[in-house]
Amino acid sequence: MDTAIVDTTLLTFADGSPGVVEEGAVGIEDDELAYVGPAADLDPGDAAEVIDGDGLVTMPGLVDAHVHSKHTLLRGGAQDVPEIEWMNRALGPLSAAATPEDRVAGARLGVLEATLAGATTVGEYADHVGDLVESVYRPFGTRVVAIETINEVREDRSDLGPRDLYEFDRERGEAALTRANALFDDHGDDPLVTPMYGPQALDMISPELLERVHEAAREREALVHMHVAQGEREAIQIEERYGAEETTVSALDDLGVLGPDLLAAHCHGTTPEERARMVEAGASMVGCPSSIGAIDGIVPPMAHFSDLGGTVGLGTDQAPGPGHHDMFRETRTAAILSKTDATDPTAMPAWEALSLATVGGARALGIEDRVGTLEVGKQADVITVDTTAPAVAPTVDRPFHTVVPNLVHSATGREVRDVFVAGERVVADREFLPADAGAIVAEARERATDLFDRAADDWRAAGSELVDHADAGRL
Amino acid sequence: MDTAIVDTTLLTFADGSPGVVEEGAVGIEDDELAYVGPAADLDPGDAAEVIDGDGLVTMPGLVDAHVHSKHTLLRGGAQDVPEIEWMNRALGPLSAAATPEDRVAGARLGVLEATLAGATTVGEYADHVGDLVESVYRPFGTRVVAIETINEVREDRSDLGPRDLYEFDRERGEAALTRANALFDDHGDDPLVTPMYGPQALDMISPELLERVHEAAREREALVHMHVAQGEREAIQIEERYGAEETTVSALDDLGVLGPDLLAAHCHGTTPEERARMVEAGASMVGCPSSIGAIDGIVPPMAHFSDLGGTVGLGTDQAPGPGHHDMFRETRTAAILSKTDATDPTAMPAWEALSLATVGGARALGIEDRVGTLEVGKQADVITVDTTAPAVAPTVDRPFHTVVPNLVHSATGREVRDVFVAGERVVADREFLPADAGAIVAEARERATDLFDRAADDWRAAGSELVDHADAGRL
Repeated sequence: MDTAIVDTTLLTFADGSPGVVEEGAVGIEDDELAYVGPAADLDPGDAAEVIDGDGLVTMPGLVDAHVHSKHTLLRGGAQDVPEIEWMNRALGPLSAAATPEDRVAGARLGVLEATLAGATTVGEYADHVGDLVESVYRPFGTRVVAIETINEVREDRSDLGPRDLYEFDRERGEAALTRANALFDDHGDDPLVTPMYGPQALDMISPELLERVHEAAREREALVHMHVAQGEREAIQIEERYGAEETTVSALDDLGVLGPDLLAAHCHGTTPEERARMVEAGASMVGCPSSIGAIDGIVPPMAHFSDLGGTVGLGTDQAPGPGHHDMFRETRTAAILSKTDATDPTAMPAWEALSLATVGGARALGIEDRVGTLEVGKQADVITVDTTAPAVAPTVDRPFHTVVPNLVHSATGREVRDVFVAGERVVADREFLPADAGAIVAEARERATDLFDRAADDWRAAGSELVDHADAGRL
Repeated sequence: MDTAIVDTTLLTFADGSPGVVEEGAVGIEDDELAYVGPAADLDPGDAAEVIDGDGLVTMPGLVDAHVHSKHTLLRGGAQDVPEIEWMNRALGPLSAAATPEDRVAGARLGVLEATLAGATTVGEYADHVGDLVESVYRPFGTRVVAIETINEVREDRSDLGPRDLYEFDRERGEAALTRANALFDDHGDDPLVTPMYGPQALDMISPELLERVHEAAREREALVHMHVAQGEREAIQIEERYGAEETTVSALDDLGVLGPDLLAAHCHGTTPEERARMVEAGASMVGCPSSIGAIDGIVPPMAHFSDLGGTVGLGTDQAPGPGHHDMFRETRTAAILSKTDATDPTAMPAWEALSLATVGGARALGIEDRVGTLEVGKQADVITVDTTAPAVAPTVDRPFHTVVPNLVHSATGREVRDVFVAGERVVADREFLPADAGAIVAEARERATDLFDRAADDWRAAGSELVDHADAGRL
């Protein structure tokens, strides 16, 4: 045995709920969990390393199921603006100034902070996602679901009226599909990389190309991860293209895409009936409450989708708007926003939120056979969390365990002590091992300063409300 | 000069908005700010200590305007239950088992974590609050607004029907008023202690005693801090006692209490018209969005009250439910809940949220002449925050400053590096100086284990939904 964590409190999530085991232990051999159970029944004698788990919770690594990490360089660049401004007038001018190197520097920072806060799997949604796999995920040893964005619409659409149909650039779409297919050749054998198709949204792709993407996904037994029902602009395009009675969900259903190989992000424009249809069809969803709350002022329907029996994962989306990549924070945000959205403090209880962040995300990404729970034979994606830190302490075991509510409602993310991915330790006693964290931050600071400077004129010309706020000294 | 913080980014809040000063400096002499301005104009030559502020933001200490810190020992004990169960069936049986020593141990942990996350003033709302002042606040050197709870209703009301009027125990109320008055004799000369009257809520106090409390407050030029319009149970009592047409706000208005010396907590049961009346009358409010969101599933009307021109502070209330005492988290929660409540991502922008947590709280507590902004002559309640930490980094200064949105939307609270209260350094490089933080946590763990154990039978007998969840293995 390579590593044993002993005398620890386990949260296994083996049956979907936390499944607290007091005085538990975990044994890691190579990339797998070799033991999960009572400490008394494990002889760690031959383990190369034994971690004393007193005061620690040991649990599955968190699954951040929907992330655009390149934007971490643009943190603070786009929030507190009307939703209609967010993409085109606030984030857009900054994002357009990013070089490929900036994207990598941003992704490094984003994955660093996600890992320090306990994420072991990231669902990375990007164009040219293979570049990020090579430059960030493989060097860091983070498990990645690599989702290639497939989008046929040109970036600059400022000349179009609100009901003008987007024109599709088939060449752009074909190139993206080719890149997506190549991921399976390039990374098909890498146990830490799971490729996935990312047709961005139904208004951004032609039905013809979507059908080909769907076919390619079925051939490779891969999932299709799509932003679904994101709001008014998308709804107008769908009406214009598919007919006045159609919505994203009904059109996806007609196209045969609404099924078990669809992972739908956000879904805040769906009706309750549409969500029931999605669950019936076997589609999954990922909710990003920090992002959709901050950018749209809307609560994603995670609680309803989950109540219907659907599979739900959580994601941190991107830094501008919601802030940063911390899955503990995301569980807490999912909980409190679901409660206020339903005016019901029992909505999205702590154990459910934490289960979405672990086994829920693993199921949503189609990798639950390997990760998401602590079970013998699964991949050793494991974290320890210090329950003696202020904010989480004290935790008690009788008459009930307070550790789960404390992790969800109280943790800052900085209580994570150790992170293992496939048995490799990437965080030890809060220190990130695969790279120099200080250098990652320093490069991000330097590149962000240059980038914002290069983008300054375009940002000002785009004229979002942030320009006025800056001029008034509020920013 | 005792301390100079140089080459730092300042947020002064001197005119209510952040007022970013790049390459700024702060000079501290005794308990006061002796310099606030450009670093170039300060000669720190004679300062006993010079802090290099590169990469740091220097700003006013945060004001946590409404806290019941004793309950920190009960963290994780009451959440995810119906509001009607929270007090009587979930928290109550645990709280009833707390000894005076348990209360102090809980308060120590709560104030420790609040301080580590940048709070320099705590509005402590407790019965026998003087004990906490002596045992926690004075030894820690934390500025405290000490609010004595005045309540005439017996704790156990389980025999009453929903429309039965509470009986008032005048003796209980008189004893509390006597304790409140004594605070002014005992601590009137302590610059770190500001006494305040805390008639708990209009359903918990007779109109006769409330009038006497109000008179005592006016005599001493002190504020009256009251929970206002907390929900259905209170509303029924007010109707039964004051008449079917009356609400808490209308009754307070009739009693002459609705004025500039009223600080109203929560206010989630007020109507928009009532809030306009409150602002017109000069009353202030404190919003605890994490608490009311988690316990009631309701968003306090902070944004509306502020839009009306009213004074608003923020508070972390108590650990069970919302989780912990971190004012940076509270600014972010205020922002995202206000956005989703209004379906408007421009509601409660970052600069407004941070201003509520500083100058807003100082105004609400009536101590804005001394704290809440960085201005020469004010008390040196100052914090530094590391902007090179992942989650907050990178920050840029052009074309606008991203530091304010990053602090609100992204900070974990663990980026706070230094905390000064009245010129005394209580946190240095993230270390709490006045006491052994490890010992505080260890005592809390031990006492919490014993307390929950003592309370176990009563907790089970009270039969909240948590009992079922625990039995089902979810907790």
